[in-house]
Amino acid sequence: MSVTAAQGFTAAGIAAGIKESGGPDLALVVNQGPRSAAAGVFTSNRVKAAPVLWTEQVLKGGELSAVVLNSGGANACTGPQGFQDTHATAEKVAASLNTAGYDETGGHDAGRIAVCSTGLIGVTLPMDKLLPGVDTAVAQLTPHGGEKAAIAIKTTDSVHKTAQVSQDNWTVGGMAKGAGMLAPGLATMLVVLTTDADLPAAELDRALRAATRTTFDRVDSDGCMSTNDTVLLLASGASGTVPDTGDFAEAVRTVCADLARQLIGDAEGASKDIRIEVVGAASEDDAVEVGRSIARNNLLKCALHGEDPNWGRVLSAIGTTSAAFEPDQLNVAINDIWVCKNGSVGEDRDLVDMRYREVRITADLAAGTESAVIWANDLTADYVHENSAYSS
Amino acid sequence: MSVTAAQGFTAAGIAAGIKESGGPDLALVVNQGPRSAAAGVFTSNRVKAAPVLWTEQVLKGGELSAVVLNSGGANACTGPQGFQDTHATAEKVAASLNTAGYDETGGHDAGRIAVCSTGLIGVTLPMDKLLPGVDTAVAQLTPHGGEKAAIAIKTTDSVHKTAQVSQDNWTVGGMAKGAGMLAPGLATMLVVLTTDADLPAAELDRALRAATRTTFDRVDSDGCMSTNDTVLLLASGASGTVPDTGDFAEAVRTVCADLARQLIGDAEGASKDIRIEVVGAASEDDAVEVGRSIARNNLLKCALHGEDPNWGRVLSAIGTTSAAFEPDQLNVAINDIWVCKNGSVGEDRDLVDMRYREVRITADLAAGTESAVIWANDLTADYVHENSAYSS
Repeated sequence: MSVTAAQGFTAAGIAAGIKESGGPDLALVVNQGPRSAAAGVFTSNRVKAAPVLWTEQVLKGGELSAVVLNSGGANACTGPQGFQDTHATAEKVAASLNTAGYDETGGHDAGRIAVCSTGLIGVTLPMDKLLPGVDTAVAQLTPHGGEKAAIAIKTTDSVHKTAQVSQDNWTVGGMAKGAGMLAPGLATMLVVLTTDADLPAAELDRALRAATRTTFDRVDSDGCMSTNDTVLLLASGASGTVPDTGDFAEAVRTVCADLARQLIGDAEGASKDIRIEVVGAASEDDAVEVGRSIARNNLLKCALHGEDPNWGRVLSAIGTTSAAFEPDQLNVAINDIWVCKNGSVGEDRDLVDMRYREVRITADLAAGTESAVIWANDLTADYVHENSAYSS
Repeated sequence: MSVTAAQGFTAAGIAAGIKESGGPDLALVVNQGPRSAAAGVFTSNRVKAAPVLWTEQVLKGGELSAVVLNSGGANACTGPQGFQDTHATAEKVAASLNTAGYDETGGHDAGRIAVCSTGLIGVTLPMDKLLPGVDTAVAQLTPHGGEKAAIAIKTTDSVHKTAQVSQDNWTVGGMAKGAGMLAPGLATMLVVLTTDADLPAAELDRALRAATRTTFDRVDSDGCMSTNDTVLLLASGASGTVPDTGDFAEAVRTVCADLARQLIGDAEGASKDIRIEVVGAASEDDAVEVGRSIARNNLLKCALHGEDPNWGRVLSAIGTTSAAFEPDQLNVAINDIWVCKNGSVGEDRDLVDMRYREVRITADLAAGTESAVIWANDLTADYVHENSAYSS
């Protein structure tokens, strides 16, 4: 499982002292090659953390030899100092790997090292702890370090998240963190995917963008878009196999969907996972717009928490969108009971069984044949407590 | 105070049995003239309740002789039956007023009677209780009935809301209800304003649109837009005075701002009233977009509930907008402490005094000279409880 499921990768996860709790907070993933092609997608928030700005630049070369990730601080809204800290982290990783004899051809270089950070916005990182931590992590790199790396990137996550798909002799594996500030474009997530398939950066990029568009980009736990979201895909080529591009894209999509579902299942304070499927839309964009509007309706999220199939709040949310539909042709099912037909009262709402964690909403716009699925969570007192009791 | 502060109006508020609680649930406001000019603004939700569809039609004539309002049921998403019920209510009011001798010239007519409903979406009204209730209300109409009318339109409101401005010998008064599903365009509100000024419908419309644009339209308690919002302004002309149009517009704006502030102060489960002022914007639209984005950020709303001046969540919200700004030029003050300067750490956040109910956020986009104020509430466990424990 995780980022070391594919051949050609080592990883480590250690406690550098960045988190006050003393828990694991620094992860390192190293691509040992023979190839180092890579691709990435990033938050669409215009306020981007220093590590996002850094890694976007680094990836323009289409290669990554390592990824260093820290929890315990987002290094966002930290000004020029924050960017210098990210740069210094990448330099330190390169130097430490070279000193330890991790020989990439020509040696590791900061310009091929991605940096990811997660935690509180607006606080600079304790570099006096982070930099020595890099040496510790390098010393602990192993081909079995994937689980420890996944644990070290947790913030308010209650469990660490990993996934893997293997086909013939190649593998796609990955790890993710994310529990709050989960919203599209992307969620507050850090994701590192690895593969031992032998593919160029352009192919990785194509597969990754296609996969995130219908997985991570359709997770909307709480409508809040992060400053730090990063999803990276590194290919070592260690399997010596060039897979069929369709097979590879499907494997990447499966791993992303698996991790995305795990993020929703572990969202802060949530008691329900809400699957919103919009059907009968005139376009996929319409379906996504309507799905997001439903996903972000606080009153509906509260009602579902209370196991109340309050379809009026679904219609109210649909009504705020610009999608093509006629109000008197809307149909809504909750857990397969069509409680709203033609914009009005449908089947008996008492028939809806709301006992289980997963709630399925189907909104039929009766305006076409396109569809989309958005995942969301309910709104709970625990969410409020978790996000009001301390800065995160 | 309320809708009977101006001369020429009678009102009543009674318990018709629409609410299961047996509390007041039917209000009636009658314009006794000599004039009956009127204007209205309505929800921009595309899923509109039957009474909204009805009243929009009625108002095309620019005249209203009465407004009947019920709590205990929104009559939204109720199909053709819902519209027939609204129509029947207006017919009943006209007949009952005519029978009781409330002589408008030529008698009252359903085509000049506005209907407003509020409560649960997707349930038809108990017409067997509502229609007899109209007779009871007509029998209790008095020039001092404004308070009772304001009480009868409450849903989850903890207090009734009224306001008044008097100038020389003319008055603008009004009542409002709204506590949840409060969001722009408009909030879940029913508002009836009255005046004894002698002005034509076009002038009323101009003053009302200008007033709501910067008051009710900038209240965003919970990001949820209602199917039933209606704001009406009726003029009796009973003062015999034609006021200066600027004075009149300012009086209407003052009453609207007063009522809007009361709505925020009584929002479901709220413990903080949040005043968000966006300054330095390139356009007013930019300022409003940024203000709304901040107002709707659940993580920020939780943080403010916890009295945590978490400015990173403000920047994260600003970053999701399309407004003109540079991330490294953003400044944010919370209760006058500039905790973020140039997109990075500013004054010590520990200086921010968060003890009071009102929280003031100032976001400076450093991109121009336009500004806007949006009002919002915090997100609390009480909000979750109130909106998950029962259908509303």
